[in-house]
Amino acid sequence: MRALIALGGNAMTGPGGSAAPVDQDNAVSSAMEHVADLIASGIDVVLTHGNGPQVGNLLVKNELAAQVVPPVPLDWCGAQTQGTIGFLILDSLDKALAARGVDRRTATIVTRTLVDGDDPGFTKPTKPIGRYLPEDEAKVLMEHGQTWEPRGDKGWRRVVASPEPLEIIDAPTIGLLADSGYVVVGAGGGGIPVVRDPDGSLRGVEAVIDKDLAAAILAPAVGADVLVIATDVDNAVLSYGTPDARPLGRVTPAQMREYAAAGHFASGSMGPKVEAAVRFVEGGGTRSVITSLQHIREAVLGSAGTIVEV
Amino acid sequence: MRALIALGGNAMTGPGGSAAPVDQDNAVSSAMEHVADLIASGIDVVLTHGNGPQVGNLLVKNELAAQVVPPVPLDWCGAQTQGTIGFLILDSLDKALAARGVDRRTATIVTRTLVDGDDPGFTKPTKPIGRYLPEDEAKVLMEHGQTWEPRGDKGWRRVVASPEPLEIIDAPTIGLLADSGYVVVGAGGGGIPVVRDPDGSLRGVEAVIDKDLAAAILAPAVGADVLVIATDVDNAVLSYGTPDARPLGRVTPAQMREYAAAGHFASGSMGPKVEAAVRFVEGGGTRSVITSLQHIREAVLGSAGTIVEV
Repeated sequence: MRALIALGGNAMTGPGGSAAPVDQDNAVSSAMEHVADLIASGIDVVLTHGNGPQVGNLLVKNELAAQVVPPVPLDWCGAQTQGTIGFLILDSLDKALAARGVDRRTATIVTRTLVDGDDPGFTKPTKPIGRYLPEDEAKVLMEHGQTWEPRGDKGWRRVVASPEPLEIIDAPTIGLLADSGYVVVGAGGGGIPVVRDPDGSLRGVEAVIDKDLAAAILAPAVGADVLVIATDVDNAVLSYGTPDARPLGRVTPAQMREYAAAGHFASGSMGPKVEAAVRFVEGGGTRSVITSLQHIREAVLGSAGTIVEV
Repeated sequence: MRALIALGGNAMTGPGGSAAPVDQDNAVSSAMEHVADLIASGIDVVLTHGNGPQVGNLLVKNELAAQVVPPVPLDWCGAQTQGTIGFLILDSLDKALAARGVDRRTATIVTRTLVDGDDPGFTKPTKPIGRYLPEDEAKVLMEHGQTWEPRGDKGWRRVVASPEPLEIIDAPTIGLLADSGYVVVGAGGGGIPVVRDPDGSLRGVEAVIDKDLAAAILAPAVGADVLVIATDVDNAVLSYGTPDARPLGRVTPAQMREYAAAGHFASGSMGPKVEAAVRFVEGGGTRSVITSLQHIREAVLGSAGTIVEV
């Protein structure tokens, strides 16, 4: 059985969401203990991961150094985090596998994800990223073509396009290595967003991609039976934050769509995870599970977390 | 025939060494035209590349944003450039290959390179990187553990360890994909420097690795017959900068070592290229060639550039 594990931001940052190098390293090491347990139990694993806090830090560096070195666009920021997070995962996972006597090679693939240049996100960006700034500083950046929005007491925040992922361009490479016995890390941060020009060639674009929606198309492309979305809660929760809140166990894709339509899941956090879980199963996947990193082994077997299956 | 092409910094930067995103993109596109010509002629190609100007920019961002976001160490900077340069190469090379009707997949592998934690570079760093700073600013950074040296009128410059590359950890992955018909980009910037801890696990370290010396060990590890070091001159030159200057054509490794010992090549630029070229042939490689990007096709066939062979 092959499982695609999508690691949330909390698996790559320290207490309070710190993206300091030592905190990222410790968080990744801890996450890889769970992943190595899963692999040691005989499950074939492909990994993907988020990159929100890391891209946030890169954008701050872009801004503060802009007078001295040219800022790099969002697609480059995504590529940068594939390198750093990918390399941390390799070192930690190699160590955790060796400690369990598991002889498997690991690899990180720089991965591009195709999006549509006509995606509505490019004309009406909605995805908030990076730090809050006072209005006057935000307005300077808006004069340079960025979109910023007021967000109450915290200040203004940049919003960018988060287009639908259409195809993981480098999925065949990930699949080939997985079929050769590798544990592969790919499509980090949802993949580097690229559009296809009329001549057929690919070109990076300024956008971010939801890593769970990307995982939902990467999973079938690499022959995964199960998609596990590892986050910081054990289950998706109905009526979250109300007295009627209750954790969701086994659910069909159709039921899950009804819950989503009824507004049970927050658009910025659990919503895309639910959507990704449903899409994978609707597309023919055996099972999607939303759960915490601690439960990924039971999740793959269908005995923990919020389990979406027909 | 398989060739490892090591692309110098000039293949990834614009006029005057600019590392602005648009300049890097244009430079890479131009370089990939030559690489695609080589592949279209029937040569099997593995690519590696430098990252000096790019790491220089990342260090400036580290410094200028340090009060707001935590600086990342040099191994992370190297990983970041593997992501960005690797992704630019993929897009440009895919396009250049398609334009020639060549149906080959491309992949970029995040690559670690093993170094010795006891390498003398770690106690006596000698490799200058990043920008020049006034003495007072350099001294502040020295208080944070960095080594900076006065460099005359230009100011002070940071020096870091540039340890000997011992093993390209992820070379088997590069080789597997190359054997599967891929054009693979690997060991960018010489690879992300890692040391092996007593328990056998790998850990990133603050250092930079000479990309040509790394290429000299990557080449045999991936079964390359020829190592081409693509730089901004057509040949290595004896008595460079003197009235006796003459370009060097075909030369044996032993002769090349004599020229090097006699001081014909600058330690910071042509020296490591000559050393890498000689090592590859001494280790059993068919041929090393030092030449400009424009001549890599003839170089592989042994009809251009400075050709080191027995």
